[in-house]
Amino acid sequence: MVQSTALLVRERGVEATSFSDVLAHSGAPRGSIYHHFPGGKAQLIEEATRYAGDFIAAGLASSLDQLDPVAALREFCSSWREVLRSSDFAAGCPVVAATVEGERLPSASEAAAASFASWEHLLAHAIQRHGQTAERASSLATLVIAAIEGAVVLARAQRSVAPFDRVAEELEDLLVAAMTDG
Amino acid sequence: MVQSTALLVRERGVEATSFSDVLAHSGAPRGSIYHHFPGGKAQLIEEATRYAGDFIAAGLASSLDQLDPVAALREFCSSWREVLRSSDFAAGCPVVAATVEGERLPSASEAAAASFASWEHLLAHAIQRHGQTAERASSLATLVIAAIEGAVVLARAQRSVAPFDRVAEELEDLLVAAMTDG
Repeated sequence: MVQSTALLVRERGVEATSFSDVLAHSGAPRGSIYHHFPGGKAQLIEEATRYAGDFIAAGLASSLDQLDPVAALREFCSSWREVLRSSDFAAGCPVVAATVEGERLPSASEAAAASFASWEHLLAHAIQRHGQTAERASSLATLVIAAIEGAVVLARAQRSVAPFDRVAEELEDLLVAAMTDG
Repeated sequence: MVQSTALLVRERGVEATSFSDVLAHSGAPRGSIYHHFPGGKAQLIEEATRYAGDFIAAGLASSLDQLDPVAALREFCSSWREVLRSSDFAAGCPVVAATVEGERLPSASEAAAASFASWEHLLAHAIQRHGQTAERASSLATLVIAAIEGAVVLARAQRSVAPFDRVAEELEDLLVAAMTDG
């Protein structure tokens, strides 16, 4: 149910994802939702946001273990391109959706904040290990995460990977230059 | 009513903004909504998205008329910082909200796409006038718009301007370097 919620939220947002949608998507019996999520929709959305954040963090950590930051960025961008293309630009990031509609769901916003921070830390540590100062590594990592999330939004709106590709190329050039400096 | 819708959407998103909320916020009489928006909520959200997009484009165009792209970026970032701070991190960008929840509102998504494209064009033309190639100016402009939109999301989630400030500084350094190259 948590995974179904994350998949639905990345397409339609938080408010438009109902318990009925989640039950239909996951095939779970109706009673189970109140059993597993006594905190109701707020808890379901919070757990789905954390699930999506951890899933993305795990992919990023695994890339950064095996590859240098530039190659890991390339892999991260490829997986986002795949999300955009395979959903015909319907799907974006559920963690962004939880933030944008988070006013009434502070626990989902907190889970979103923790997700963004964990991605930033993973990337910043990798950039630092490759020779940049902690301060510059942190600002580069935040730029990369912010720009990719923004590029996913632009690509969805424009129904094209072109804006995403322009952003990915600028980020790659910037990281290459920063690692050479560092 | 269109302005009220844009102001509500940037805080709570599209789905959670009801006709009743818009009437309460704008003080408009109930009958007027069906008179002015025969297309219902889809039309209201589309017009609010276009209104917000045009409002931001007008501010950006005016900065870029008077200032070089780096100084205009600084002014653009200041106005976003003010939105974040004055709303205590509740408000973001209504054009992003229209995209993230746009699955069911294709006309709002189209208005969002047109808004993003108009901001990108304004900025790309200004960067090109300051000596960059059309191709590089276009990718820098897309990066700036994507990164600022993403940074607004990160700042809202983390309830802090710190991620926004890190992104703004990286973008400023990158633009300065690009103008010197060009």
